Amino acid sequence: MSELIAVVGLGLIGGSLARRLASCHDVVGYDADPATRALARTAGLAVEDALPAAVHGASVVFVAVPLPALSDVVAQVALASAPGAVVTDVGSVKSPLYAAVREQGLSAPFVGGHPMAGTERSGFAASDPGLYDGAAWVLCLEPDTDLSAWLRLAAVLTGIGARVVPSTAAEHDAAVARISHVPHLLAAALAATVADAGPLAMTLAAGSFRAGTRVAATAPELPSSMVRANLGAVETALAETMQRLPARGADPGPLIVAGHRARIAWEERQVAPAEIALDGEELRGRLLDLGRRGGWLERVDPHTLSVAVPEPV
Amino acid sequence: MSELIAVVGLGLIGGSLARRLASCHDVVGYDADPATRALARTAGLAVEDALPAAVHGASVVFVAVPLPALSDVVAQVALASAPGAVVTDVGSVKSPLYAAVREQGLSAPFVGGHPMAGTERSGFAASDPGLYDGAAWVLCLEPDTDLSAWLRLAAVLTGIGARVVPSTAAEHDAAVARISHVPHLLAAALAATVADAGPLAMTLAAGSFRAGTRVAATAPELPSSMVRANLGAVETALAETMQRLPARGADPGPLIVAGHRARIAWEERQVAPAEIALDGEELRGRLLDLGRRGGWLERVDPHTLSVAVPEPV
Repeated sequence: MSELIAVVGLGLIGGSLARRLASCHDVVGYDADPATRALARTAGLAVEDALPAAVHGASVVFVAVPLPALSDVVAQVALASAPGAVVTDVGSVKSPLYAAVREQGLSAPFVGGHPMAGTERSGFAASDPGLYDGAAWVLCLEPDTDLSAWLRLAAVLTGIGARVVPSTAAEHDAAVARISHVPHLLAAALAATVADAGPLAMTLAAGSFRAGTRVAATAPELPSSMVRANLGAVETALAETMQRLPARGADPGPLIVAGHRARIAWEERQVAPAEIALDGEELRGRLLDLGRRGGWLERVDPHTLSVAVPEPV
Repeated sequence: MSELIAVVGLGLIGGSLARRLASCHDVVGYDADPATRALARTAGLAVEDALPAAVHGASVVFVAVPLPALSDVVAQVALASAPGAVVTDVGSVKSPLYAAVREQGLSAPFVGGHPMAGTERSGFAASDPGLYDGAAWVLCLEPDTDLSAWLRLAAVLTGIGARVVPSTAAEHDAAVARISHVPHLLAAALAATVADAGPLAMTLAAGSFRAGTRVAATAPELPSSMVRANLGAVETALAETMQRLPARGADPGPLIVAGHRARIAWEERQVAPAEIALDGEELRGRLLDLGRRGGWLERVDPHTLSVAVPEPV
């Protein structure tokens, strides 16, 4: 585990990752912003002043830059990285990035990734090495994904306590439209409706408003770029969600009961441990099947993967 | 302040209230459920085994029972209470209760109330005497409201640290449709959509799903009865909220920016102190104006009300 790992982009996501990885690997960071580089150095990280210097010699490179810059920076990293280095990212939408990567014909093996963690804050100052403890971290398995590169990344990420979830880019994008992008739109619509309702409503707003609009506190560039990049899946998911809302005159009771059941099922979901042999047949298919069943990798050993599989609800 | 105050219904809301009031008043409680009565006695509250015995001799009676039982219990309390006692409630929808109270022709002065506090838990075991610290507590001011009864209640509630917000029943119901009832419907729709999307989505669900569906963890009877009782206002508020969501092909950016501004304006709202003379003209109108500007009573003194008024955003 004495790999050199580079993290490009040291905001909340990259900064938290670099700090956590530094406890078990050699880590070098880079950020385009000199103030962020200075902050990261003060926190004890090794930081280079230029992207090629940071990436040079690293066997794994995490690209943690904002979504609009992502495909350009991934291409720069692939050009600058050592032969055989694995390039991955942490962006919240995967299909457009894969399209760009395939168009560019990257020389380095690329695996799209997405940690399901974050807060409504941003920047290195908000970073937290514990951010990924027990967090789901999607690693995409596409037909052209280098399986050994995928497994190297999975070993690094399970090593810092993340739950590595195998998924295709398209299935990931459809899922995050529902669990993240639509929630951002609903939170924004709720906050704007209450503000327009006037000062009395703002004063009465309490717990259900606070929770329902929490993600609207996020700097708007982030959710805007996510939703724009995933617009097709988001529109489908939004239409699905809106169709559930009661029509005028309809009883709202069944929706409220269904929502309650769903939330409690989520909170109380049980998982069972299992193993997948690394030299077994159809490893790619078995991994994708694990992800579709809601499962994840807990540990990568030389011959087996320790996995967790939720019990059906 | 040596009034005897009765609290009928000792769940989360009534139990928290009785426990907090007991630190500065004589308090007697009652609950229809013997197990709840036993629990409340164990917590040190004086509890009667019958409603008339609890209400007898009290100068203020809080009715804190579930919405479907509310108007019946308010009528029972009014019959059993001492002459001049003030009856109030804590229900989350006010117009239907006022309609029932007027139809019944209550003998006791009635003031509808609604504390903007609660959690997704319920029952006396979840009660917390600190629940109302700094919480908005609507007291309705209708054309037929006894102003001295209203001020007595306002004194009791500001005395336990609540922010007393004057409002008409209709304006209250329109506001809570937006800040509470629509959020419950959106949370339910979100939770149900994600559950139906399958196990992968359930595994990826993290912070924005957790916050956006938090209130769906509430026992469904409570939000169902609130939404049903306020259905007209909720349908209007829901239509307003849905109209803000981007149409197919539209840029979601402006909504996300508007929602962010609204949430931050709510978080950062500043208030200024002011006073209202109790012997001034048009006290009723000035109180309702205060509520419409988002203001509240902080303290009731013999000749003045100390109030807080939010600065316009």
